[in-house]
Amino acid sequence: NLLMKEVENMGLVYEMPHEVSYYECDLTGTMTVSMLVAVAIKSSEQQSALFNRGTDYIHSIGLNWIITDYRISLERLPRVGEKLVFKTEAKTYNRFFCYSSFWVFDQKGNLLVEIESVFALMNQTTRKLARVQDEIIAPYESEKQTTIKRMESILPVEKGESMLMTSQFYDIDENKHVNNAVYFQWLFSPLGFDFLTTFVPTKIRVRFEKEILYGSQSQSEFEKREEDTHVTTLHEISVKDEICCRAQIEWKKIETLD
Amino acid sequence: NLLMKEVENMGLVYEMPHEVSYYECDLTGTMTVSMLVAVAIKSSEQQSALFNRGTDYIHSIGLNWIITDYRISLERLPRVGEKLVFKTEAKTYNRFFCYSSFWVFDQKGNLLVEIESVFALMNQTTRKLARVQDEIIAPYESEKQTTIKRMESILPVEKGESMLMTSQFYDIDENKHVNNAVYFQWLFSPLGFDFLTTFVPTKIRVRFEKEILYGSQSQSEFEKREEDTHVTTLHEISVKDEICCRAQIEWKKIETLD
Repeated sequence: NLLMKEVENMGLVYEMPHEVSYYECDLTGTMTVSMLVAVAIKSSEQQSALFNRGTDYIHSIGLNWIITDYRISLERLPRVGEKLVFKTEAKTYNRFFCYSSFWVFDQKGNLLVEIESVFALMNQTTRKLARVQDEIIAPYESEKQTTIKRMESILPVEKGESMLMTSQFYDIDENKHVNNAVYFQWLFSPLGFDFLTTFVPTKIRVRFEKEILYGSQSQSEFEKREEDTHVTTLHEISVKDEICCRAQIEWKKIETLD
Repeated sequence: NLLMKEVENMGLVYEMPHEVSYYECDLTGTMTVSMLVAVAIKSSEQQSALFNRGTDYIHSIGLNWIITDYRISLERLPRVGEKLVFKTEAKTYNRFFCYSSFWVFDQKGNLLVEIESVFALMNQTTRKLARVQDEIIAPYESEKQTTIKRMESILPVEKGESMLMTSQFYDIDENKHVNNAVYFQWLFSPLGFDFLTTFVPTKIRVRFEKEILYGSQSQSEFEKREEDTHVTTLHEISVKDEICCRAQIEWKKIETLD
Protein backbone atom coordinates (compact mmCIF):
# COMPACT_ATOMS: atom_id res chain seq x y z
CA ASN A 1 0.00 0.00 0.00
CA LEU A 2 0.98 3.57 -0.58
CA LEU A 3 2.25 5.58 2.34
CA MET A 4 2.41 9.36 2.43
CA LYS A 5 5.92 9.96 3.66
CA GLU A 6 5.09 12.50 6.36
CA VAL A 7 8.64 12.50 7.65
CA GLU A 8 9.98 13.72 4.34
CA ASN A 9 7.59 16.68 4.18
CA MET A 10 9.54 19.81 3.48
CA GLY A 11 6.94 22.37 2.43
CA LEU A 12 3.49 23.48 3.47
CA VAL A 13 0.69 21.02 2.72
CA TYR A 14 -2.51 22.32 1.10
CA GLU A 15 -5.78 20.38 1.20
CA MET A 16 -8.72 20.55 -1.23
CA PRO A 17 -11.92 18.48 -1.07
CA HIS A 18 -13.30 17.19 -4.36
CA GLU A 19 -16.39 15.16 -5.25
CA VAL A 20 -16.05 13.05 -8.41
CA SER A 21 -18.61 13.97 -11.11
CA TYR A 22 -19.80 11.56 -13.82
CA TYR A 23 -18.11 13.68 -16.51
CA GLU A 24 -14.74 13.12 -14.82
CA CYS A 25 -15.19 9.36 -15.32
CA ASP A 26 -15.03 6.87 -18.14
CA LEU A 27 -18.04 4.77 -19.13
CA THR A 28 -17.39 2.38 -16.22
CA GLY A 29 -17.74 5.20 -13.67
CA THR A 30 -14.01 5.24 -12.91
CA MET A 31 -12.28 8.63 -12.72
CA THR A 32 -9.93 9.14 -15.68
CA VAL A 33 -6.24 9.74 -15.01
CA SER A 34 -6.51 12.86 -17.16
CA MET A 35 -9.14 14.36 -14.83
CA LEU A 36 -7.30 13.14 -11.73
CA VAL A 37 -4.24 15.09 -12.82
CA ALA A 38 -6.34 18.14 -13.81
CA VAL A 39 -7.95 18.24 -10.35
CA ALA A 40 -4.54 17.76 -8.66
CA ILE A 41 -3.20 20.77 -10.58
CA LYS A 42 -6.25 22.74 -9.41
CA SER A 43 -5.23 22.09 -5.78
CA SER A 44 -1.77 23.39 -6.60
CA GLU A 45 -3.24 26.50 -8.27
CA GLN A 46 -5.40 27.16 -5.20
CA GLN A 47 -2.35 26.95 -2.94
CA SER A 48 -0.44 29.29 -5.22
CA ALA A 49 -3.30 31.80 -5.24
CA LEU A 50 -3.28 31.72 -1.42
CA PHE A 51 0.41 32.71 -1.49
CA ASN A 52 -0.08 35.40 -4.15
CA ARG A 53 1.88 33.18 -6.48
CA GLY A 54 -1.00 32.46 -8.87
CA THR A 55 -0.98 32.57 -12.66
CA ASP A 56 -1.38 36.38 -12.70
CA TYR A 57 1.80 36.83 -10.67
CA ILE A 58 3.81 34.34 -12.74
CA HIS A 59 2.60 35.99 -15.98
CA SER A 60 3.41 39.46 -14.62
CA ILE A 61 7.07 38.46 -14.42
CA GLY A 62 6.99 37.08 -17.98
CA LEU A 63 6.90 33.39 -17.07
CA ASN A 64 4.67 30.30 -17.34
CA TRP A 65 4.74 27.13 -15.25
CA ILE A 66 5.24 23.99 -17.29
CA ILE A 67 5.39 20.36 -16.21
CA THR A 68 8.23 18.14 -17.40
CA ASP A 69 7.64 14.86 -15.52
CA TYR A 70 5.08 12.80 -13.67
CA ARG A 71 5.42 9.63 -11.63
CA ILE A 72 2.04 8.35 -10.48
CA SER A 73 1.47 5.41 -8.10
CA LEU A 74 -2.08 4.11 -7.91
CA GLU A 75 -3.64 1.92 -5.25
CA ARG A 76 -6.96 2.36 -7.08
CA LEU A 77 -8.70 5.02 -9.18
CA PRO A 78 -11.58 6.95 -7.55
CA ARG A 79 -15.19 6.18 -8.53
CA VAL A 80 -18.04 8.49 -9.52
CA GLY A 81 -19.64 10.19 -6.49
CA GLU A 82 -16.66 9.63 -4.15
CA LYS A 83 -15.73 12.48 -1.84
CA LEU A 84 -11.97 12.85 -2.04
CA VAL A 85 -9.33 15.01 -0.44
CA PHE A 86 -6.43 16.19 -2.60
CA LYS A 87 -3.30 17.21 -0.73
CA THR A 88 -0.35 18.94 -2.33
CA GLU A 89 3.05 20.10 -1.27
CA ALA A 90 5.93 21.84 -3.09
CA LYS A 91 8.68 19.72 -1.55
CA THR A 92 12.03 20.83 -2.93
CA TYR A 93 13.51 22.91 -5.72
CA ASN A 94 16.81 23.71 -7.42
CA ARG A 95 17.94 26.26 -9.99
CA PHE A 96 15.65 24.96 -12.74
CA PHE A 97 13.12 22.52 -11.31
CA CYS A 98 10.48 22.35 -8.57
CA TYR A 99 9.35 19.01 -7.15
CA SER A 100 5.72 18.89 -6.06
CA SER A 101 3.73 15.96 -4.75
CA PHE A 102 0.00 15.30 -4.66
CA TRP A 103 -1.92 12.71 -2.67
CA VAL A 104 -5.51 11.65 -3.22
CA PHE A 105 -7.40 10.23 -0.22
CA ASP A 106 -10.83 8.63 -0.06
CA GLN A 107 -13.46 9.45 2.57
CA LYS A 108 -12.00 6.89 4.99
CA GLY A 109 -8.57 8.46 4.74
CA ASN A 110 -7.07 5.73 2.54
CA LEU A 111 -4.38 6.98 0.20
CA LEU A 112 -5.52 6.09 -3.34
CA VAL A 113 -3.01 7.88 -5.53
CA GLU A 114 0.34 9.59 -5.19
CA ILE A 115 1.52 11.95 -7.94
CA GLU A 116 5.10 13.20 -8.03
CA SER A 117 5.71 15.99 -10.51
CA VAL A 118 8.48 18.20 -11.81
CA PHE A 119 7.61 21.81 -12.62
CA ALA A 120 9.76 24.31 -14.47
CA LEU A 121 9.39 27.95 -15.48
CA MET A 122 9.26 28.89 -19.15
CA ASN A 123 10.03 32.36 -20.46
CA GLN A 124 6.89 33.52 -22.30
CA THR A 125 8.86 35.13 -25.13
CA THR A 126 11.74 32.72 -25.78
CA ARG A 127 9.77 29.62 -24.64
CA LYS A 128 13.00 28.43 -22.96
CA LEU A 129 13.56 27.38 -19.35
CA ALA A 130 14.00 30.21 -16.87
CA ARG A 131 15.83 30.14 -13.51
CA VAL A 132 13.70 29.46 -10.45
CA GLN A 133 14.16 32.47 -8.17
CA ASP A 134 13.95 31.96 -4.40
CA GLU A 135 11.40 34.77 -4.13
CA ILE A 136 8.87 32.84 -6.22
CA ILE A 137 9.16 29.73 -4.04
CA ALA A 138 9.60 31.26 -0.56
CA PRO A 139 5.92 31.10 0.53
CA TYR A 140 5.70 27.34 -0.15
CA GLU A 141 8.59 26.68 2.31
CA SER A 142 10.13 24.14 -0.09
CA GLU A 143 13.69 23.06 0.62
CA LYS A 144 16.32 24.40 -1.77
CA GLN A 145 18.73 21.79 -3.10
CA THR A 146 21.81 22.13 -5.26
CA THR A 147 21.45 18.86 -7.13
CA ILE A 148 19.05 18.00 -9.94
CA LYS A 149 17.03 14.87 -9.17
CA ARG A 150 16.07 12.72 -12.12
CA MET A 151 13.13 10.36 -12.23
CA GLU A 152 13.83 6.89 -13.62
CA SER A 153 14.23 6.69 -17.39
CA ILE A 154 11.56 5.28 -19.69
CA LEU A 155 12.09 2.31 -22.00
CA PRO A 156 11.80 3.19 -25.70
CA VAL A 157 9.09 1.77 -27.98
CA GLU A 158 10.66 -0.84 -30.21
CA LYS A 159 7.77 -1.99 -32.30
CA GLY A 160 4.55 -0.08 -31.80
CA GLU A 161 1.07 0.54 -33.11
CA SER A 162 0.01 4.13 -33.47
CA MET A 163 -2.99 6.46 -33.58
CA LEU A 164 -3.16 9.92 -35.10
CA MET A 165 -4.03 12.78 -32.74
CA THR A 166 -4.73 16.34 -33.90
CA SER A 167 -4.37 19.06 -31.28
CA GLN A 168 -7.69 20.87 -31.34
CA PHE A 169 -8.82 24.13 -29.75
CA TYR A 170 -9.99 22.58 -26.47
CA ASP A 171 -6.70 20.67 -25.97
CA ILE A 172 -4.77 23.95 -25.73
CA ASP A 173 -4.20 25.80 -22.46
CA GLU A 174 -3.20 29.37 -21.61
CA ASN A 175 0.43 28.47 -22.40
CA LYS A 176 -0.80 27.95 -25.98
CA HIS A 177 0.28 24.33 -26.06
CA VAL A 178 -1.45 21.01 -25.44
CA ASN A 179 -2.33 20.84 -21.73
CA ASN A 180 -0.47 18.19 -19.72
CA ALA A 181 -3.70 16.46 -18.65
CA VAL A 182 -4.70 15.95 -22.32
CA TYR A 183 -1.62 13.75 -22.89
CA PHE A 184 -3.08 11.08 -20.61
CA GLN A 185 -6.03 10.71 -22.98
CA TRP A 186 -3.66 10.62 -25.93
CA LEU A 187 -1.49 7.99 -24.21
CA PHE A 188 -4.37 5.79 -23.04
CA SER A 189 -6.86 6.01 -25.95
CA PRO A 190 -4.84 4.01 -28.54
CA LEU A 191 -4.85 1.02 -26.13
CA GLY A 192 -8.50 0.56 -27.10
CA PHE A 193 -11.82 -0.27 -25.51
CA ASP A 194 -11.16 -3.89 -24.51
CA PHE A 195 -7.81 -3.16 -22.87
CA LEU A 196 -9.06 -0.07 -21.02
CA THR A 197 -12.05 -1.94 -19.59
CA THR A 198 -9.89 -4.94 -18.53
CA PHE A 199 -6.76 -3.32 -17.05
CA VAL A 200 -6.11 -0.47 -14.61
CA PRO A 201 -2.83 1.42 -14.24
CA THR A 202 -0.74 0.90 -11.09
CA LYS A 203 2.28 3.03 -12.02
CA ILE A 204 2.57 5.75 -14.63
CA ARG A 205 5.82 7.46 -15.58
CA VAL A 206 5.51 10.31 -18.09
CA ARG A 207 8.15 12.65 -19.45
CA PHE A 208 7.30 15.71 -21.55
CA GLU A 209 10.20 16.50 -23.84
CA LYS A 210 8.79 19.07 -26.23
CA GLU A 211 5.59 21.08 -26.25
CA ILE A 212 2.89 20.39 -28.87
CA LEU A 213 1.25 23.44 -30.38
CA TYR A 214 -2.24 24.08 -31.75
CA GLY A 215 -3.12 22.21 -34.96
CA SER A 216 -0.19 19.76 -34.81
CA GLN A 217 -0.64 16.21 -36.02
CA SER A 218 0.87 13.77 -33.53
CA GLN A 219 1.35 10.04 -33.60
CA SER A 220 0.63 8.33 -30.28
CA GLU A 221 2.51 5.05 -30.50
CA PHE A 222 2.48 2.22 -27.97
CA GLU A 223 3.93 -1.21 -27.40
CA LYS A 224 2.49 -3.82 -25.03
CA ARG A 225 4.68 -6.22 -23.04
CA GLU A 226 2.82 -8.95 -21.18
CA GLU A 227 3.92 -11.23 -18.38
CA ASP A 228 1.17 -13.30 -16.72
CA THR A 229 -1.51 -10.85 -15.50
CA HIS A 230 0.99 -7.98 -15.46
CA VAL A 231 1.26 -5.72 -18.49
CA THR A 232 3.70 -2.91 -19.21
CA THR A 233 2.95 -0.44 -21.99
CA LEU A 234 5.57 1.86 -23.52
CA HIS A 235 4.50 5.04 -25.26
CA GLU A 236 5.89 7.75 -27.52
CA ILE A 237 3.99 10.75 -28.83
CA SER A 238 5.77 12.34 -31.79
CA VAL A 239 5.25 15.26 -34.13
CA LYS A 240 7.07 14.83 -37.45
CA ASP A 241 9.28 12.04 -36.03
CA GLU A 242 10.39 14.19 -33.11
CA ILE A 243 9.43 12.67 -29.75
CA CYS A 244 7.43 15.11 -27.59
CA CYS A 245 6.34 12.77 -24.81
CA ARG A 246 7.41 9.35 -23.53
CA ALA A 247 5.62 7.16 -21.02
CA GLN A 248 5.84 3.78 -19.33
CA ILE A 249 2.75 2.41 -17.64
CA GLU A 250 2.33 -0.69 -15.46
CA TRP A 251 -1.12 -2.30 -15.47
CA LYS A 252 -3.00 -4.95 -13.53
CA LYS A 253 -6.16 -6.82 -14.44
CA ILE A 254 -9.35 -5.39 -12.97
CA GLU A 255 -10.63 -7.71 -10.26
CA THR A 256 -14.20 -8.65 -11.04
CA LEU A 257 -16.71 -9.88 -8.49
CA ASP A 258 -17.82 -12.98 -10.40
CA ASN B 1 -32.06 39.49 -21.70
CA LEU B 2 -33.11 35.99 -20.84
CA LEU B 3 -36.03 35.51 -18.51
CA MET B 4 -36.81 32.31 -16.67
CA LYS B 5 -40.47 31.81 -17.40
CA GLU B 6 -41.58 31.08 -13.84
CA VAL B 7 -45.22 31.21 -14.82
CA GLU B 8 -44.78 28.36 -17.23
CA ASN B 9 -43.16 26.09 -14.64
CA MET B 10 -44.88 22.76 -14.66
CA GLY B 11 -42.54 20.45 -12.75
CA LEU B 12 -40.43 20.55 -9.63
CA VAL B 13 -37.33 22.73 -9.86
CA TYR B 14 -34.01 21.34 -8.60
CA GLU B 15 -31.04 23.56 -7.75
CA MET B 16 -27.34 22.68 -7.74
CA PRO B 17 -24.44 25.03 -6.95
CA HIS B 18 -21.32 24.73 -9.10
CA GLU B 19 -17.98 26.53 -9.06
CA VAL B 20 -16.24 26.73 -12.45
CA SER B 21 -12.81 25.01 -12.49
CA TYR B 22 -10.00 25.94 -14.88
CA TYR B 23 -10.28 22.54 -16.59
CA GLU B 24 -13.90 23.32 -17.53
CA CYS B 25 -12.68 26.35 -19.46
CA ASP B 26 -10.92 27.07 -22.73
CA LEU B 27 -7.56 28.85 -22.83
CA THR B 28 -9.29 32.24 -22.37
CA GLY B 29 -10.79 31.13 -19.02
CA THR B 30 -14.30 30.88 -20.49
CA MET B 31 -16.37 27.80 -19.61
CA THR B 32 -16.81 25.55 -22.65
CA VAL B 33 -20.32 24.77 -23.88
CA SER B 34 -19.43 21.08 -23.66
CA MET B 35 -18.73 21.36 -19.93
CA LEU B 36 -21.73 23.64 -19.38
CA VAL B 37 -23.99 20.96 -20.82
CA ALA B 38 -22.20 18.19 -18.87
CA VAL B 39 -22.73 20.06 -15.57
CA ALA B 40 -26.38 20.75 -16.47
CA ILE B 41 -26.92 17.03 -17.04
CA LYS B 42 -25.33 16.39 -13.63
CA SER B 43 -28.02 18.56 -11.99
CA SER B 44 -30.64 16.51 -13.78
CA GLU B 45 -29.02 13.25 -12.60
CA GLN B 46 -28.98 14.53 -9.02
CA GLN B 47 -32.68 15.36 -9.21
CA SER B 48 -33.40 11.91 -10.65
CA ALA B 49 -31.41 10.21 -7.89
CA LEU B 50 -33.45 12.15 -5.31
CA PHE B 51 -36.64 10.69 -6.86
CA ASN B 52 -35.22 7.14 -7.11
CA ARG B 53 -35.26 7.61 -10.84
CA GLY B 54 -31.48 7.50 -11.30
CA THR B 55 -29.49 5.54 -13.85
CA ASP B 56 -29.72 2.33 -11.78
CA TYR B 57 -33.52 2.45 -11.88
CA ILE B 58 -33.68 3.23 -15.61
CA HIS B 59 -31.19 0.42 -16.36
CA SER B 60 -33.14 -2.00 -14.15
CA ILE B 61 -36.13 -1.64 -16.47
CA GLY B 62 -33.94 -2.19 -19.55
CA LEU B 63 -33.78 1.43 -20.69
CA ASN B 64 -31.32 4.31 -21.18
CA TRP B 65 -32.02 8.03 -21.36
CA ILE B 66 -30.84 9.65 -24.57
CA ILE B 67 -31.00 13.26 -25.68
CA THR B 68 -32.37 14.14 -29.11
CA ASP B 69 -32.37 17.96 -29.14
CA TYR B 70 -30.93 21.04 -27.49
CA ARG B 71 -31.80 24.69 -27.85
CA ILE B 72 -29.42 26.90 -25.86
CA SER B 73 -29.75 30.67 -25.38
CA LEU B 74 -26.71 32.44 -23.99
CA GLU B 75 -26.50 35.86 -22.40
CA ARG B 76 -22.84 35.11 -21.66
CA LEU B 77 -20.68 32.08 -20.86
CA PRO B 78 -19.45 31.68 -17.25
CA ARG B 79 -15.81 32.42 -16.38
CA VAL B 80 -13.28 30.39 -14.38
CA GLY B 81 -13.84 30.67 -10.62
CA GLU B 82 -17.47 31.84 -10.88
CA LYS B 83 -19.93 30.40 -8.39
CA LEU B 84 -22.99 29.38 -10.35
CA VAL B 85 -26.38 27.91 -9.62
CA PHE B 86 -27.82 25.38 -12.07
CA LYS B 87 -31.59 24.94 -11.95
CA THR B 88 -33.43 22.21 -13.79
CA GLU B 89 -37.02 21.19 -14.33
CA ALA B 90 -38.67 18.37 -16.24
CA LYS B 91 -41.46 20.50 -17.72
CA THR B 92 -43.67 18.34 -19.91
CA TYR B 93 -43.75 14.94 -21.59
CA ASN B 94 -45.68 12.92 -24.11
CA ARG B 95 -45.63 9.27 -25.21
CA PHE B 96 -42.07 9.40 -26.53
CA PHE B 97 -40.36 12.59 -25.41
CA CYS B 98 -39.61 14.51 -22.20
CA TYR B 99 -38.93 18.23 -22.26
CA SER B 100 -36.48 19.46 -19.62
CA SER B 101 -35.05 22.91 -19.11
CA PHE B 102 -31.92 24.12 -17.37
CA TRP B 103 -30.97 27.61 -16.25
CA VAL B 104 -27.55 28.82 -15.22
CA PHE B 105 -27.37 31.80 -12.84
CA ASP B 106 -24.35 33.80 -11.70
CA GLN B 107 -23.69 34.80 -8.06
CA LYS B 108 -25.79 37.96 -8.43
CA GLY B 109 -28.76 35.94 -9.68
CA ASN B 110 -28.39 36.98 -13.33
CA LEU B 111 -29.57 34.33 -15.78
CA LEU B 112 -26.60 33.53 -18.03
CA VAL B 113 -27.80 30.53 -20.00
CA GLU B 114 -31.04 28.70 -20.73
CA ILE B 115 -30.90 25.15 -22.09
CA GLU B 116 -34.01 23.45 -23.44
CA SER B 117 -33.63 19.76 -24.11
CA VAL B 118 -35.57 16.79 -25.40
CA PHE B 119 -34.98 13.43 -23.71
CA ALA B 120 -36.16 10.03 -24.90
CA LEU B 121 -35.87 6.48 -23.60
CA MET B 122 -33.94 3.90 -25.61
CA ASN B 123 -34.41 0.15 -25.20
CA GLN B 124 -31.00 -1.24 -24.21
CA THR B 125 -31.36 -4.32 -26.40
CA THR B 126 -33.03 -3.04 -29.57
CA ARG B 127 -31.53 0.49 -29.27
CA LYS B 128 -34.94 1.81 -30.43
CA LEU B 129 -37.16 4.42 -28.77
CA ALA B 130 -39.30 3.14 -25.90
CA ARG B 131 -42.61 4.56 -24.61
CA VAL B 132 -42.36 6.99 -21.70
CA GLN B 133 -44.43 5.45 -18.90
CA ASP B 134 -46.20 7.76 -16.46
CA GLU B 135 -44.67 5.90 -13.52
CA ILE B 136 -41.16 6.92 -14.57
CA ILE B 137 -42.08 10.61 -14.75
CA ALA B 138 -44.54 10.94 -11.85
CA PRO B 139 -42.04 12.20 -9.19
CA TYR B 140 -40.94 15.11 -11.40
CA GLU B 141 -44.54 16.43 -11.59
CA SER B 142 -44.13 17.17 -15.30
CA GLU B 143 -47.29 17.90 -17.25
CA LYS B 144 -48.41 15.17 -19.64
CA GLN B 145 -49.28 16.36 -23.13
CA THR B 146 -50.75 14.53 -26.09
CA THR B 147 -48.94 16.48 -28.80
CA ILE B 148 -45.32 16.23 -29.86
CA LYS B 149 -43.57 19.59 -29.78
CA ARG B 150 -40.86 20.15 -32.35
CA MET B 151 -38.00 22.57 -32.03
CA GLU B 152 -37.30 24.74 -35.07
CA SER B 153 -35.58 22.99 -37.97
CA ILE B 154 -31.92 23.48 -38.81
CA LEU B 155 -30.66 24.80 -42.16
CA PRO B 156 -28.56 22.26 -44.10
CA VAL B 157 -24.88 22.79 -44.91
CA GLU B 158 -24.60 23.68 -48.59
CA LYS B 159 -20.88 24.08 -49.04
CA GLY B 160 -18.78 23.21 -46.03
CA GLU B 161 -15.29 22.59 -44.75
CA SER B 162 -14.79 19.51 -42.64
CA MET B 163 -12.58 17.94 -39.97
CA LEU B 164 -12.18 14.23 -39.22
CA MET B 165 -13.17 13.08 -35.72
CA THR B 166 -12.52 9.57 -34.41
CA SER B 167 -14.64 8.49 -31.45
CA GLN B 168 -12.13 7.43 -28.82
CA PHE B 169 -12.54 5.61 -25.52
CA TYR B 170 -13.09 8.73 -23.39
CA ASP B 171 -15.78 10.09 -25.77
CA ILE B 172 -18.03 7.10 -25.03
CA ASP B 173 -20.55 7.04 -22.18
CA GLU B 174 -22.37 4.24 -20.37
CA ASN B 175 -24.82 4.06 -23.29
CA LYS B 176 -21.81 2.93 -25.35
CA HIS B 177 -22.10 5.82 -27.77
CA VAL B 178 -20.49 9.25 -28.04
CA ASN B 179 -21.71 11.35 -25.11
CA ASN B 180 -23.92 14.31 -26.03
CA ALA B 181 -21.54 16.83 -24.42
CA VAL B 182 -18.67 15.62 -26.65
CA TYR B 183 -20.57 16.73 -29.78
CA PHE B 184 -20.18 20.37 -28.74
CA GLN B 185 -16.40 19.99 -28.95
CA TRP B 186 -16.76 18.25 -32.32
CA LEU B 187 -19.08 21.00 -33.60
CA PHE B 188 -16.98 23.91 -32.35
CA SER B 189 -13.38 22.68 -32.88
CA PRO B 190 -13.37 22.81 -36.73
CA LEU B 191 -14.18 26.56 -36.56
CA GLY B 192 -10.57 27.05 -35.48
CA PHE B 193 -8.52 29.05 -33.02
CA ASP B 194 -9.04 32.55 -34.47
CA PHE B 195 -12.80 32.20 -34.78
CA LEU B 196 -13.24 30.67 -31.32
CA THR B 197 -11.24 33.44 -29.65
CA THR B 198 -13.13 36.19 -31.55
CA PHE B 199 -16.76 35.03 -31.42
CA VAL B 200 -19.07 33.70 -28.70
CA PRO B 201 -22.28 31.74 -29.28
CA THR B 202 -25.61 33.41 -28.50
CA LYS B 203 -27.97 30.66 -29.70
CA ILE B 204 -27.22 26.99 -30.30
CA ARG B 205 -29.69 24.55 -31.86
CA VAL B 206 -28.52 20.93 -32.00
CA ARG B 207 -30.36 17.84 -33.20
CA PHE B 208 -29.00 14.32 -32.66
CA GLU B 209 -30.30 12.06 -35.41
CA LYS B 210 -28.26 8.89 -35.04
CA GLU B 211 -25.90 7.68 -32.34
CA ILE B 212 -22.16 7.40 -33.04
CA LEU B 213 -20.47 4.29 -31.68
CA TYR B 214 -16.93 3.63 -30.44
CA GLY B 215 -14.21 3.78 -33.09
CA SER B 216 -16.33 5.50 -35.76
CA GLN B 217 -14.75 8.00 -38.11
CA SER B 218 -16.95 11.08 -38.40
CA GLN B 219 -16.74 14.17 -40.55
CA SER B 220 -17.63 17.38 -38.72
CA GLU B 221 -18.59 19.78 -41.50
CA PHE B 222 -19.46 23.44 -41.14
CA GLU B 223 -20.44 26.45 -43.21
CA LYS B 224 -20.10 30.06 -42.09
CA ARG B 225 -22.62 32.77 -43.08
CA GLU B 226 -21.65 36.30 -42.14
CA GLU B 227 -23.69 39.46 -41.93
CA ASP B 228 -21.99 42.49 -40.33
CA THR B 229 -20.78 41.42 -36.86
CA HIS B 230 -23.34 38.59 -36.76
CA VAL B 231 -22.29 35.13 -37.90
CA THR B 232 -24.37 31.98 -38.32
CA THR B 233 -22.64 28.60 -38.60
CA LEU B 234 -24.36 25.48 -39.92
CA HIS B 235 -23.03 22.07 -38.97
CA GLU B 236 -23.39 18.42 -39.94
CA ILE B 237 -21.58 15.50 -38.33
CA SER B 238 -21.72 12.41 -40.54
CA VAL B 239 -20.51 8.82 -40.42
CA LYS B 240 -20.19 7.26 -43.89
CA ASP B 241 -22.34 10.01 -45.46
CA GLU B 242 -25.15 9.43 -43.00
CA ILE B 243 -25.92 12.54 -40.93
CA CYS B 244 -25.78 11.85 -37.17
CA CYS B 245 -26.00 15.39 -35.84
CA ARG B 246 -27.06 18.79 -37.23
CA ALA B 247 -26.56 22.17 -35.63
CA GLN B 248 -27.12 25.84 -36.23
CA ILE B 249 -25.25 28.34 -34.10
CA GLU B 250 -25.58 32.13 -33.91
CA TRP B 251 -22.46 34.06 -32.86
CA LYS B 252 -21.53 37.57 -31.83
CA LYS B 253 -18.12 39.21 -31.68
CA ILE B 254 -16.48 39.22 -28.27
CA GLU B 255 -16.53 42.74 -26.85
CA THR B 256 -12.99 43.73 -25.95
CA LEU B 257 -12.07 46.43 -23.45
CA ASP B 258 -9.63 48.34 -25.66
